[in-house]
Amino acid sequence: MSVQLLQFLDEIKDIIEERMPAHIERLNSPDMLKNSMLYSLKAGGKRIRPALLLATMKSFQKDISQGIDLACAIEMIHTYSLIHDDLPSMDDDDIRRGKPTNHKVFGEAHAILAGDALLTYSFEIVAKMKGVDPAKTLCLIEELARAAGPEGMVGGQVADIEGENQKLTVEGLEYIHHHKTGALLSFAIVAGARLADASEQDIENIRRFSRELGLLFQIKDDILDVEGDQAAIGKPVGSDDGNQKSTYPSLLTLEGAKEKLHLHTLLAKEYLYSVQMNHRLLEELTDYVVNRNH
Amino acid sequence: MSVQLLQFLDEIKDIIEERMPAHIERLNSPDMLKNSMLYSLKAGGKRIRPALLLATMKSFQKDISQGIDLACAIEMIHTYSLIHDDLPSMDDDDIRRGKPTNHKVFGEAHAILAGDALLTYSFEIVAKMKGVDPAKTLCLIEELARAAGPEGMVGGQVADIEGENQKLTVEGLEYIHHHKTGALLSFAIVAGARLADASEQDIENIRRFSRELGLLFQIKDDILDVEGDQAAIGKPVGSDDGNQKSTYPSLLTLEGAKEKLHLHTLLAKEYLYSVQMNHRLLEELTDYVVNRNH
Repeated sequence: MSVQLLQFLDEIKDIIEERMPAHIERLNSPDMLKNSMLYSLKAGGKRIRPALLLATMKSFQKDISQGIDLACAIEMIHTYSLIHDDLPSMDDDDIRRGKPTNHKVFGEAHAILAGDALLTYSFEIVAKMKGVDPAKTLCLIEELARAAGPEGMVGGQVADIEGENQKLTVEGLEYIHHHKTGALLSFAIVAGARLADASEQDIENIRRFSRELGLLFQIKDDILDVEGDQAAIGKPVGSDDGNQKSTYPSLLTLEGAKEKLHLHTLLAKEYLYSVQMNHRLLEELTDYVVNRNH
Repeated sequence: MSVQLLQFLDEIKDIIEERMPAHIERLNSPDMLKNSMLYSLKAGGKRIRPALLLATMKSFQKDISQGIDLACAIEMIHTYSLIHDDLPSMDDDDIRRGKPTNHKVFGEAHAILAGDALLTYSFEIVAKMKGVDPAKTLCLIEELARAAGPEGMVGGQVADIEGENQKLTVEGLEYIHHHKTGALLSFAIVAGARLADASEQDIENIRRFSRELGLLFQIKDDILDVEGDQAAIGKPVGSDDGNQKSTYPSLLTLEGAKEKLHLHTLLAKEYLYSVQMNHRLLEELTDYVVNRNH
């Protein structure tokens, strides 16, 4: 990773990790609720969705300050989804990023409500964005809700549960990932282009890029889950395997998954290069997604 | 209840109960998710929030068609909150409106996700409303999220859980209800006034009315819980009492709760009469809330 990308990611992480708690702390809400929301927001993570949104704005030569609240909202929605996914009735995970999951600390009821609150509050934050044309903000809210809702992330999560303990096809697996994780990643990038007033043609091309990137993200996660080091990713290696879950390596073999990763990296870059922008940052971010070791 | 009010409520109920499933059926989502969302949306209920929104529009002589999607969104948010409230880790209710609760039919994971999907999709529906000025729609989204989120309904639910098994003051009980149920009821009425282009003065007065109405709703619920007939309300009579929950009758005695109901009915009407509108419909709705027997 180049020094410039490293600096950019660190800068974004600092901005988002300062702004998200500030949004929570000003709430007039019970302390228990604020604490449970803050606990998961402060649990770390790569903040890849905010980075993608703001990197896209920057690549279109747009000042990133207008996108920070939307980046926080996306990260809060991602965080709510992790809290709910970890619940005993879902994945039943006790540990996330090396720390006890929300429901292990605050109990199930408060974990569910912390998730509900993060999701709902995200829309308030987006609706209140300053300096953005109201019609554009409405378009962003509509696309955010679609990416996070029954036709996006939640739909993917339901399909994922339904696909458990049965052997999926590669197409079935791709459906799940395009929805469960891809939709919100893709929204982050497209939203960055919208905030930068990109042309409809560029938005369409960057949407195609974003779908490939989402796929790369998941293939790489699956590969890391086989190869990874428990300490580095903070959950037991091969835990998905223990649940009989279909993954790219389990369907394609590890080598097949690596080949797919390589092919879609080429495809992602082809779409990226067709967009009228400075490509360097998103190109490097793509390489980072593909080459990371956690 | 007058024939006119009865007809109006029936008409609204029919419109909402046709439009909500239509919104779900057009979703490109897993059938399991659509079925679990539809199950709870079709489980009946008074549809009081949609009625309040549309009654307010009508009272300002505004055509109600522009408010129907917002009314659906509010009812969907109300429905999501019931699904999550009924979960084993929350109120652990098996029966709602005489039918098995969502998680008894679809399991906990799908119930949580049906709630998440209804909440998220509501914002998409509002963002897509036709014929409303984008700046006004944004204002409605901001207020809806605030009413439903950590400073509103979710905050009230957390306070409610925290207040369980301890004797609350009347002020503590009022805080819970103003947030847990009052905020969304109040939003429905204020949103109706906004869609009807009411003046800021009228909006302020109808907001005061709406807060009183929300309080009346809860006091009456508590009274019904003591007096009510199990078949009529569809849950065991006195079930809140069994949980040692504070209620208006338990804090004020049954007679004291009835007196409070009477006083706040007068106050609600005083605020209502100060609004420049046709008062008949909301006046009758207030009487209905106070006099209903289920």
